[in-house]
Amino acid sequence: MIKELNPRTRVLMGPGPSDVHPRVLKAMSTPLIGHLDPQFIQIMDDVKEMTRELFQTKNDVTSVMSATGSAGMETCFVNLLERGDEAIVCVGGVFGTRMCDIVERCGAKLTRVDAKWGEPIDPGQVKEALKKTTSPKLVAIVHAETSTGVLQPLEEISKMVHEAGALFLVDAVTSLAGVPVKVDDWKIDAIYSGSQKCISAPPGLSPVSFSGEACKVMDSRKTKSQSWYLDMSMIRNYWAGAKRAYHHTGPISMIYSFHEALRLVFEEGLEKRFERHQKNHAILRDGLEAMGFEFVVAPQYRLPMLNAIRIPAGYDDAAIRGRLLNEYNIEIGAGLGDFAGKVWRIGLMGESCTLNHINMILSALKQIMK
Amino acid sequence: MIKELNPRTRVLMGPGPSDVHPRVLKAMSTPLIGHLDPQFIQIMDDVKEMTRELFQTKNDVTSVMSATGSAGMETCFVNLLERGDEAIVCVGGVFGTRMCDIVERCGAKLTRVDAKWGEPIDPGQVKEALKKTTSPKLVAIVHAETSTGVLQPLEEISKMVHEAGALFLVDAVTSLAGVPVKVDDWKIDAIYSGSQKCISAPPGLSPVSFSGEACKVMDSRKTKSQSWYLDMSMIRNYWAGAKRAYHHTGPISMIYSFHEALRLVFEEGLEKRFERHQKNHAILRDGLEAMGFEFVVAPQYRLPMLNAIRIPAGYDDAAIRGRLLNEYNIEIGAGLGDFAGKVWRIGLMGESCTLNHINMILSALKQIMK
Repeated sequence: MIKELNPRTRVLMGPGPSDVHPRVLKAMSTPLIGHLDPQFIQIMDDVKEMTRELFQTKNDVTSVMSATGSAGMETCFVNLLERGDEAIVCVGGVFGTRMCDIVERCGAKLTRVDAKWGEPIDPGQVKEALKKTTSPKLVAIVHAETSTGVLQPLEEISKMVHEAGALFLVDAVTSLAGVPVKVDDWKIDAIYSGSQKCISAPPGLSPVSFSGEACKVMDSRKTKSQSWYLDMSMIRNYWAGAKRAYHHTGPISMIYSFHEALRLVFEEGLEKRFERHQKNHAILRDGLEAMGFEFVVAPQYRLPMLNAIRIPAGYDDAAIRGRLLNEYNIEIGAGLGDFAGKVWRIGLMGESCTLNHINMILSALKQIMK
Repeated sequence: MIKELNPRTRVLMGPGPSDVHPRVLKAMSTPLIGHLDPQFIQIMDDVKEMTRELFQTKNDVTSVMSATGSAGMETCFVNLLERGDEAIVCVGGVFGTRMCDIVERCGAKLTRVDAKWGEPIDPGQVKEALKKTTSPKLVAIVHAETSTGVLQPLEEISKMVHEAGALFLVDAVTSLAGVPVKVDDWKIDAIYSGSQKCISAPPGLSPVSFSGEACKVMDSRKTKSQSWYLDMSMIRNYWAGAKRAYHHTGPISMIYSFHEALRLVFEEGLEKRFERHQKNHAILRDGLEAMGFEFVVAPQYRLPMLNAIRIPAGYDDAAIRGRLLNEYNIEIGAGLGDFAGKVWRIGLMGESCTLNHINMILSALKQIMK
């Protein structure tokens, strides 16, 4: 027989999941009700209202996908793209690369705009790509590249995307609830995030939102979306309207957790939450720099919640992360892709963004790397 | 501000979710660890071992998809089908119909074998369809049609599918853990289920399993699967092997719940669990028939865990279900599709399959319909 779960308690300072507040854990242990129960419909409405507030949008088509952030990414592409469409994807890390993979699976024509890992996308190159393509349907970009720690400025690029008549698709998996994400002000047409980063709910859900323009494009599709599970033409009817149309069985307990995590976000207030992430990032940064660590990203493009630092010469990546995990129960993120073995990623997300977390990681690193 | 969750406690006797054991609810409130933590890898291994046992298979490619049963359905099709392939789908209700929709989204050529709603598929018609098609890649069928209450015998059809050189794809969403599902004995090549039916975990996960033959077909694809999120060529590397390859962030808390729900299944034992479902179904049936209710399905094809009964003339469907929910806190299922307004579906799944549940629903119906 398999034994009962008995994991050692960890301190989650990697690229997500982040630590989850006890109130969120408790919410998950609420007994289940049916996914079409009027009580659950009310809970969905409340979650939708808070999700819109979080995205700073009035978009009616805002919902929470019943799968992780990567499925949110796929949702945006498979609903907007049809075979033969042109799409421009900005790539500066693993998640931009993943977008390209999905665009190709949609049978669309891909144009890449690349940045060096650790650097933001150059708007000038987006302009070039827009000129080079005939009729790009969308331009996709990652707001917070979790693999590199870059915060991508969006407003200038948004403007040129709309001037070219394309839709603007944004990955806000790591940024949402940690730095401002202004969907309406920045004219973002399609956006997705994940539950397990700065929202500090468990992984498994992906909030998404689509602008009126994006809805027009979805409504005028010539073909069905290639994904049934992620098809917004059905999902929006499960998340809106007086009579909810059954699509799939909503993940009740995960929605409970998300509901409580969002309540915590708004109890703190968005502005205060963003300030907390910035302030704590500065404290961690000062501590790391005092120890001699170098950041991968230039100061003006650094994410507060995902601190990518170079592993100093002479130190063994896996051995140190292993000691952090086994002796201190602290998880930090390894480098991905080009950065494997060269970079660590220290997360300060949501519930994991506290002075105590900073003191724990700095002290542990000092003891291990002395 | 949105208020704290405070739903009234329900008795779940619909088509799923079923009631969840307090140990499963408690497991979900376990603090999170990382999805690549060696402790979590061990938990995944344990879940995989129990899932194989549940499917009665030695299939190496057995895992749990990070989304609901409908995504499990999509997983099987998008990994096995390529554009232009031929697929035969057996349709006797909503979920067979959904399979057709997905096959068409895969760009495959669909041949349907239809049964009247409430009746099983006729193997003779499957044989005809196999003759009519040139080189069918797969034949798909629903083992337990949740919309009608039919239990479909699989062995005879499996034999003719394999004689024709096709793969056999089975929906076991409602059957798994409630009636025998023998993946190896019945030579099923691809199968999926859901967490929230007879397993009695919350909705949000879909266990899947693929035979060696199915893996050969996946390995020799000419094109990538159209879904990145559901692509088994990557997911199998996250669920197997010494070095786990990051794909997406596993839904930690949901896996915790599934782990505990599976432990409960094996504490009871599969055979005893199947007997419990049959025995309680017989008791409910006798009670319903004594009240004058008629079953939709002939006795030899009836599902024990999903009892579809005709609404007697002169009774108001919505009003009675409304009273059950509001006065008794009991949820039963409405009729779907052809059966809307004509049929009720009473679930006896997993934790909801007890004598007390039967007594509650029979007593409440007697009081309301007197």
